[in-house]
Amino acid sequence: MLLEKTIAGIGELNAEAMEEARGHQKNLIKPYGSLGMLEDVAVKIAGITGEVKPVLENKAVITCAGDHGVAARKVSVADQEVTRQMVRGFLDGGAAINVLTRHAGARVICVDVGMVKPVDDPRLKVRRVGPGTGDIATGPAMSREQARAAVEAGIEVAAAEIEKGVELLATGDMGIGNTTPSTAILAAFTGFPAFLITGRGTGIDREALQRKAQIVEEALKVNKPDPRDGLDVLAGVGGFEIGAIAGVILSAAASRVPVVIDGFISGAGAMIARALAPRALDFVLASHLSEEPGHKVMLTWLGVRPLLQMNMRLGEGTGAALSFTLIDAALKIVREMATYDQAGVSDTGLR
Amino acid sequence: MLLEKTIAGIGELNAEAMEEARGHQKNLIKPYGSLGMLEDVAVKIAGITGEVKPVLENKAVITCAGDHGVAARKVSVADQEVTRQMVRGFLDGGAAINVLTRHAGARVICVDVGMVKPVDDPRLKVRRVGPGTGDIATGPAMSREQARAAVEAGIEVAAAEIEKGVELLATGDMGIGNTTPSTAILAAFTGFPAFLITGRGTGIDREALQRKAQIVEEALKVNKPDPRDGLDVLAGVGGFEIGAIAGVILSAAASRVPVVIDGFISGAGAMIARALAPRALDFVLASHLSEEPGHKVMLTWLGVRPLLQMNMRLGEGTGAALSFTLIDAALKIVREMATYDQAGVSDTGLR
Repeated sequence: MLLEKTIAGIGELNAEAMEEARGHQKNLIKPYGSLGMLEDVAVKIAGITGEVKPVLENKAVITCAGDHGVAARKVSVADQEVTRQMVRGFLDGGAAINVLTRHAGARVICVDVGMVKPVDDPRLKVRRVGPGTGDIATGPAMSREQARAAVEAGIEVAAAEIEKGVELLATGDMGIGNTTPSTAILAAFTGFPAFLITGRGTGIDREALQRKAQIVEEALKVNKPDPRDGLDVLAGVGGFEIGAIAGVILSAAASRVPVVIDGFISGAGAMIARALAPRALDFVLASHLSEEPGHKVMLTWLGVRPLLQMNMRLGEGTGAALSFTLIDAALKIVREMATYDQAGVSDTGLR
Repeated sequence: MLLEKTIAGIGELNAEAMEEARGHQKNLIKPYGSLGMLEDVAVKIAGITGEVKPVLENKAVITCAGDHGVAARKVSVADQEVTRQMVRGFLDGGAAINVLTRHAGARVICVDVGMVKPVDDPRLKVRRVGPGTGDIATGPAMSREQARAAVEAGIEVAAAEIEKGVELLATGDMGIGNTTPSTAILAAFTGFPAFLITGRGTGIDREALQRKAQIVEEALKVNKPDPRDGLDVLAGVGGFEIGAIAGVILSAAASRVPVVIDGFISGAGAMIARALAPRALDFVLASHLSEEPGHKVMLTWLGVRPLLQMNMRLGEGTGAALSFTLIDAALKIVREMATYDQAGVSDTGLR
């Protein structure tokens, strides 16, 4: 029972380390709090890792790919084949996620959790749960067993990386059509009506947007996902890569490795993770607020604040990779800034 | 007449390069627009530099320091002496701006435009216009000649760096009390009542905040700055370092070097620059939205959108330095991403 074991391993934030981290921020030559979220991030990471001045050099984005039966209903402007083409692009190093992870000094780990057709490439991690999900508008995305398998795929991939020494993780996604199941997951957990939280994804027009919102409502009616049961929501209206993202988060949380979520799809994965283990979210950092209209509601429900708001809506883990450079900066502030005593600066009123 | 010559040298954005940059973004393997502000930044920089794939490696933040007569009215929690102590901190490399510029692969150039007491250190650029400004609540901050000298100090420092090959510039500030003149500048140009746009700066309490707003109103009544005349506003209610920041912006614009403004004080400098030469703002990128309540109004008036919103309020150029890593990322996207043709990805509906 890998899932249950992982959940049982999730502890609490280290309150003592966080208090020490706050004290250290007060000693640095700046008004306390004046570096805003850079300070918050450093304090949270102290709580996760137990260290006030951690060095998180070994960084990776785990980008999970899967296909969606609902894509046949033209909920995306892109052909389903693009999932596979983009995964090839990730392996070849020319996609946005490759550029941004290189920029951040991080790696991309690409996992096939269930594309329609496999890709034969030794650089791809293969954890296929099925050849794409079922059409959620007419039935479940997957069986409960497949839902568990998808989450456990993510747990295993993350655990292998942690075993090899990764110190900072992030989640990413690839799957044409996957904003539709993500919206259904959001609606299932929050009760928001679909028309308020359904967005244009890759860029559908107004007519397609209305159809997409209707498909989300149908998916909820047909599958009746139980919001108290994360695996039921995932099986009913989710996706294989969304389950794997939930697994990556649970695994990172159990090993006290900070995990950064990307945009709307990663957020849907985090909702599943939270439903399975609420404390997992203590180990999550939100990278950015995406252009998807439901993302703000999603992040609020998750209880996390995004570092970036740059109107991005690409997925792949791009927002998370970009935020790595900010997290690095936050930790360098902690490690490299002088204290009032060291610099001979008067601290009156400033801390 | 260095100021007039600089202003006359400011040209227009290169519309052809921007169109080419947009076309290039459409060819990259992502839905057009899906990288949000990363795409906007790359297009703007193409317009500034005339190159679609520029490499901007030589980067510097010019941090301008000055003191303020109004500091005697306790508009800040910090002692005026902290200006000088922090400048020493910048030279020694232990301040937040040092950490964040190192993180971005950039340099800090520190300029004394008029602290109360000089600092004797060969690493400091000295362009002292006076030993701190006058108290704006009872009279002008400086004479019109001093205002011109402050702006020209910034022009000269930036021009020297550009001559030596700097490719990306940013502005920063140090000056205890300088949110007060910056708020007065904002009020002078926008007509907003002081109580709506006055903030806590380093962290004053509610009582001091009310006093500070009143001081801003008094400064406007006493000095009657003419919003059609940038030098008059600077002389009446400004600061030496604020003038120098305006000069850095004008100089960068005249040389077609992108210039990133930091927070509230740099924004006040940009307002002066815009009053002197409206087109200068075409060459400006806004790094972040600060915690100062008037900053949003300021950026709207300037016509620029901030890359970051991280609740920072430190100044020094810290937000600008942090944004350098995002600008780098935007340019790497342009230079390193594969096109649809190169990667064999179907572009139907995506561009």
